[in-house]
Amino acid sequence: MLFEKLESLHTAQKKMLAKIKSFSRDDMETIPLSDGLDRILAVNVESEIDVPHYDRCAMDGYAVRSQMVRNASRTNPVLLEKDVQTLWVHTGDALPDGFDAVVKAEDAEEIGKMVAVYRAVRKNENVGLRGEDIRAGELIAEKGKILRPHDLALLRSAGIDEIDVFRKPVVKVVPTGDELVTSKELLKPGKVIESNGLMVSAYITEWGGIPEITGIIPDDRQKIERVFHDVQKYDMIVVTGGTSVGKRDLLYDVLMDVGEVIFRGVALRPGKPTVFAVVDNTPVLGLPGFPTACVASSYLFLKPSLSKMLHRSDNASFNVRLTEKIHSKAGFTSFVRLHVDFEKMESVPVSSHGSGILSSVTRANAYTLVDENTEVVEENEVVRAFPL
Amino acid sequence: MLFEKLESLHTAQKKMLAKIKSFSRDDMETIPLSDGLDRILAVNVESEIDVPHYDRCAMDGYAVRSQMVRNASRTNPVLLEKDVQTLWVHTGDALPDGFDAVVKAEDAEEIGKMVAVYRAVRKNENVGLRGEDIRAGELIAEKGKILRPHDLALLRSAGIDEIDVFRKPVVKVVPTGDELVTSKELLKPGKVIESNGLMVSAYITEWGGIPEITGIIPDDRQKIERVFHDVQKYDMIVVTGGTSVGKRDLLYDVLMDVGEVIFRGVALRPGKPTVFAVVDNTPVLGLPGFPTACVASSYLFLKPSLSKMLHRSDNASFNVRLTEKIHSKAGFTSFVRLHVDFEKMESVPVSSHGSGILSSVTRANAYTLVDENTEVVEENEVVRAFPL
Repeated sequence: MLFEKLESLHTAQKKMLAKIKSFSRDDMETIPLSDGLDRILAVNVESEIDVPHYDRCAMDGYAVRSQMVRNASRTNPVLLEKDVQTLWVHTGDALPDGFDAVVKAEDAEEIGKMVAVYRAVRKNENVGLRGEDIRAGELIAEKGKILRPHDLALLRSAGIDEIDVFRKPVVKVVPTGDELVTSKELLKPGKVIESNGLMVSAYITEWGGIPEITGIIPDDRQKIERVFHDVQKYDMIVVTGGTSVGKRDLLYDVLMDVGEVIFRGVALRPGKPTVFAVVDNTPVLGLPGFPTACVASSYLFLKPSLSKMLHRSDNASFNVRLTEKIHSKAGFTSFVRLHVDFEKMESVPVSSHGSGILSSVTRANAYTLVDENTEVVEENEVVRAFPL
Repeated sequence: MLFEKLESLHTAQKKMLAKIKSFSRDDMETIPLSDGLDRILAVNVESEIDVPHYDRCAMDGYAVRSQMVRNASRTNPVLLEKDVQTLWVHTGDALPDGFDAVVKAEDAEEIGKMVAVYRAVRKNENVGLRGEDIRAGELIAEKGKILRPHDLALLRSAGIDEIDVFRKPVVKVVPTGDELVTSKELLKPGKVIESNGLMVSAYITEWGGIPEITGIIPDDRQKIERVFHDVQKYDMIVVTGGTSVGKRDLLYDVLMDVGEVIFRGVALRPGKPTVFAVVDNTPVLGLPGFPTACVASSYLFLKPSLSKMLHRSDNASFNVRLTEKIHSKAGFTSFVRLHVDFEKMESVPVSSHGSGILSSVTRANAYTLVDENTEVVEENEVVRAFPL
């Protein structure tokens, strides 16, 4: 048996994403800012205060009237009466009333009751004016922003204690296959330890979702059907295994019955037996059972799905020079594992002779895609790499 | 007042790291593999089983004796007696005794009780031999590896259920400063909302540690001293603020009394008022109170410290072309925020006119360092960038 028609990677991704809904205001939750690391803003956020919220001394030194010291210099210091014509201020203090600039500590000297100023300052020099950094009501963080530690600090300093973020998508992960067992104690010939479900669950966590993994589902039509009985409780269902065209690959038949299959089979190596369907408005992604194919399809289908739900853009990538040529099958996009040497910005393709061999992925730290019209990428060519 | 002597960034980092101990076997904990995402292996891990642990059919199709079909072709098929001379097998099945290869399903056809084979196969073709991917006892993941989802899958498929990882370093975070308040309701002129402690805590979480933030400590010698009474409970103490040379910057004086100051003041912009000391064998890092300086010093001192404890290497970086020139002060390493356009692999420096302005950091997605001997990096030059 063969796949009837392979979708190109690009078309498959496009058809899939057309069925994935971006989260809306209904998918929002309010959390304390201190829990906000890596969460995604669901609304634009405006500052609640002016920052600074007062005219602020930006240096330790002496508050002055700039007019009075306009001619000051090292050779011709201006003498000011301490605590009357000038006041000592710390960085961050409010600029005292009647003063308009700060002379840095190292540009002045106390001499008895006087302060000798050795340097002229302009009006507002060494002063942070109220609202100079941020004005109250100013947009400080946009909907869709993934909150980094410094974003949390900016929001906190703008008076914000709670934030509205997108809830995390809940994804049901369903490892399928008669051959799967849960531990090495149960191994016998023909059996393998389930690992794709664990892996996909960890990817979901990493990409901002909440995985809910089921037990192993055997290659049994009724049991696979039952997986889809509660689809509406989830934002997405991910099934691993059973997606190919073998006699035990039942997922496609079940999906034809219970939902709408959007595509089955992608011109992608590894990753061909990827299936996407919609059941009761819930997206269902079937990932290949071969581990490296499962990795490729996770990055190329699962990650963009979660990103679309969460309004994230996944554009982190970089260019590297290849130190070895890559061969790719015409008509197929190749997902090529790379080991990037970040010192040299060079990259070696990490090859393996089968899509079952995960160790090739664990030696890689990035991947590149070779498009379907390219059969060879030459040594020394520069390719776009994405972190793994 | 001025710093007596500024250390170069490189020397300061080197002196600091000499005082940071990498975690040893005593700092190990055993956790379920399923909790292992982003944890760091404390020991080398060897496979507990052969993978595959039996001679495994790598395709759906027909198990054969390769000798019998060595002349098979589309035009001259070899006919084999079903269930006697050939057996149907699924991908992943054990290769039945007496057979040595698998003919793919699409290269054969059932005709009554016979199977027509249309293609020759070599011995072991479409078979994964026992131990071909991984042998029992083979090293599959090295000490220091940060566990990614596919690493978890590899370990699971090698029979591993529990792993020994480094515990997370516990870091006490101490925001200091009379000017700090906890919320906007408490603001008045001269006060600002504490945000560095929140930010540094989030960085610690991100970089693999556990932050324990204290309340705000005022600029009071005795209260600052008390911070160091329980240092031995922590792997590191990070104090924010109070590190400069102003009259209220008491941290240095306290550290001189209670421990050994390794350096005070770094030729880094922003980030100059960074202090490092050792108190009762515990590293103490004083970070500048200015937010962007605090970011720079966090990346350049806190992150490498945690990485050294955890045996991590921090080498993720990439090259980008600058679309605007950068000016840098001679004698100082500049920490320059960049906004990288990953489509074009171009980068604009994100400038701000003060180190207090966090919004410049939140608009950036990377940084570069301009070394102390460089005053100008020209437009179109390629620089090494590090993700923010």
